[in-house]
Amino acid sequence: MRILVQKYGGTSVMGLERMRLVLARVQKAHVEGYKLVVALSAMSGVTNRLLAQAREFSANPDPAELDVLVTTGEQASVALFSMLAKDAGLRARSLLGFQIPITTNSNFSRARIMDIDTVRVKAMLEDHDVLVVAGFQGVDCNGRLTTLGRGGSDTTGVALAAALEAEVCEIYTDVNGVYTTDPNLCSNARKLDRISYDEMLELSSQGAKVLQIRSVELAKKFNVPVRVRSTFTDDPGTLVTLEDTEMEDVLVSGIAYDKDQCRITVRNVMDRPGVAASIFAPIAEAGILVDMIIQNTGRDGRTDMTFTISRANLDKTLAILEHLRPVIGCEDIQHDIHVCKVSVIGVGMRSHSGVASTMFTLLKKENINILMIATSEIKITCLIEEKYVELAVRTLHDAFGLSEGPAKACP
Amino acid sequence: MRILVQKYGGTSVMGLERMRLVLARVQKAHVEGYKLVVALSAMSGVTNRLLAQAREFSANPDPAELDVLVTTGEQASVALFSMLAKDAGLRARSLLGFQIPITTNSNFSRARIMDIDTVRVKAMLEDHDVLVVAGFQGVDCNGRLTTLGRGGSDTTGVALAAALEAEVCEIYTDVNGVYTTDPNLCSNARKLDRISYDEMLELSSQGAKVLQIRSVELAKKFNVPVRVRSTFTDDPGTLVTLEDTEMEDVLVSGIAYDKDQCRITVRNVMDRPGVAASIFAPIAEAGILVDMIIQNTGRDGRTDMTFTISRANLDKTLAILEHLRPVIGCEDIQHDIHVCKVSVIGVGMRSHSGVASTMFTLLKKENINILMIATSEIKITCLIEEKYVELAVRTLHDAFGLSEGPAKACP
Repeated sequence: MRILVQKYGGTSVMGLERMRLVLARVQKAHVEGYKLVVALSAMSGVTNRLLAQAREFSANPDPAELDVLVTTGEQASVALFSMLAKDAGLRARSLLGFQIPITTNSNFSRARIMDIDTVRVKAMLEDHDVLVVAGFQGVDCNGRLTTLGRGGSDTTGVALAAALEAEVCEIYTDVNGVYTTDPNLCSNARKLDRISYDEMLELSSQGAKVLQIRSVELAKKFNVPVRVRSTFTDDPGTLVTLEDTEMEDVLVSGIAYDKDQCRITVRNVMDRPGVAASIFAPIAEAGILVDMIIQNTGRDGRTDMTFTISRANLDKTLAILEHLRPVIGCEDIQHDIHVCKVSVIGVGMRSHSGVASTMFTLLKKENINILMIATSEIKITCLIEEKYVELAVRTLHDAFGLSEGPAKACP
Repeated sequence: MRILVQKYGGTSVMGLERMRLVLARVQKAHVEGYKLVVALSAMSGVTNRLLAQAREFSANPDPAELDVLVTTGEQASVALFSMLAKDAGLRARSLLGFQIPITTNSNFSRARIMDIDTVRVKAMLEDHDVLVVAGFQGVDCNGRLTTLGRGGSDTTGVALAAALEAEVCEIYTDVNGVYTTDPNLCSNARKLDRISYDEMLELSSQGAKVLQIRSVELAKKFNVPVRVRSTFTDDPGTLVTLEDTEMEDVLVSGIAYDKDQCRITVRNVMDRPGVAASIFAPIAEAGILVDMIIQNTGRDGRTDMTFTISRANLDKTLAILEHLRPVIGCEDIQHDIHVCKVSVIGVGMRSHSGVASTMFTLLKKENINILMIATSEIKITCLIEEKYVELAVRTLHDAFGLSEGPAKACP
């Protein structure tokens, strides 16, 4: 049985006309001999509308009930698409998370998939041409509905592809694939034909909104080939796959940026063992993701601790820090929301040096001050003032020659 | 454990302000020491909107997928109300049909409840003040979502009350209770304090939209006291309960009418055994409910067969009859949609005669022609021309003295 998993995002299922395009793609794959598992998102705007409704009802909606509410969006999508597919003569049916089941842990609104009952799904594929699965949702061991976090339908798709050993997981969206950088910001951004899981991971974590980061981790873990492509064009899109030698020759694959950043500096905390833990443990317990962290070398038994978080978490984080003041003995807590992360990403960096210093030089030439630096094996990230973001991205993109083709050497 | 089941209809949960009124009622009952099971409908208009969306996608939507779509309405209601209840300090949680489970047969869009797992619900009531149950929905033995038909949330409420042996099932709506007739049509209609299950059954089947007929059947079967009352007033409403001797003294309890009627006459069918079956079996198989049926005494081996159906089923029924023509050998198929049913209802009729002839005399006085007559133990129904319906209802209501108090004798 040749199994193909396709996932369609919110803009691809928004209304009858677009669902007909989805149907055409499904029919094409059916004719080619595939059994299809199609994961759908809620129609564009629906999830946001439901979240807004919840906030009208509660300043801090119960997370379990919020998941009961927002899962209705995908439920409506799969019901409507299944009607279309059945009318077109396909043996189709919808499957909600609890019906498969896609079992998750009980972290409502950001649950993780623990298990997918593939025996049942495969048995159903015997009698069906296409199974239409509600993305984003699962069920915990108590039978309560859960959701996988923003963009979770990508993860539904990849997890199904992994569990069912599908040939490929196609992620259909409204862009042609993964670009060297944001085309809205850099007109000569180039679509990549292939990208490695690791690069995609860095791109996703750096704010590129093409794929949910969890889905990329999962694809990498189970070696699921993922093709990101558009519902609305015939472009073959971008294949996210295992790294190969050809990829390693490429020094820089893309430039990412993330404006949803906020810098917090805790001044003159006591420089003693455990101080970092006493700051970051309560923040982590509050479910707040800390991104970059820098601790300067101390002086006079005191040091500064600087880190970044997403802007939505600023108030909550400041409140936690105020509460911690007596414990950490800090002098001052400062914050700045007018900052932005810019990252240069490429698996080639593993074996080539010089990318970091080139990046710093390029930024300096444009008089862009670097506020923080973080590096990984295949990525260099600088925090800069937000007003310079467009200039920085365009400068780096052009200097690394990304518009012409894979950058194979430092400029 | 004192258990109270409350069911709130679409107008009672439409928006935050109205849900707050629902919350106040729930809190009051909680303070009085009750454990609550609250069944909710979809917000007013939501189900119709979803059905319209389905029709946009398919001329004849797959019934199973239609149920997946429309159940989202109640799902949203219970999630939002549970958020409110939790914020108010109540130990509350939502329960969808499949989570209880409320097991039904697989007749999508008009499923019947087969079983409710009360052990689980009672265990959950130990840890909760209020369980917020999605009305209208269930799950079949294959784990597929089902719905109980229009007004099915009433049935959810009564079925839960029966299964949990609740003290009473309160059905909250936007009217103060059950009236002697439609107040919109007859300004001196009077609210009834009590009504028997049988009378309520006849009223429901005759077009009074207060309670789904299935819910009344269920209440009668399990002797569940049902109180119909308004969310928006303090009126104690109408208690639907077992017949008692006091009720039997009342000759006529109410006047009902149903405009959703359509008369079909099959002329000169062959008057031989089995002809009725050969007409009505295919209609029943198509899921069409036939209401009144009259077969005139035959002549020359031929007879006329007249019956009524709801207007939505006219086209489908005519098509079936056309198909049957060669079998039943009829001469002509006629139909009339400008007809209406008017019924006089009262358990007192069981032991008192004269109500039928009084009804016919009253209609004759107003020059209203009777097209068909049907009777049951506690009801007399006449089919009349639609244009006379208001006149007929007011005439009967006034002549039987319903505005002043229970009618104890024929006028």
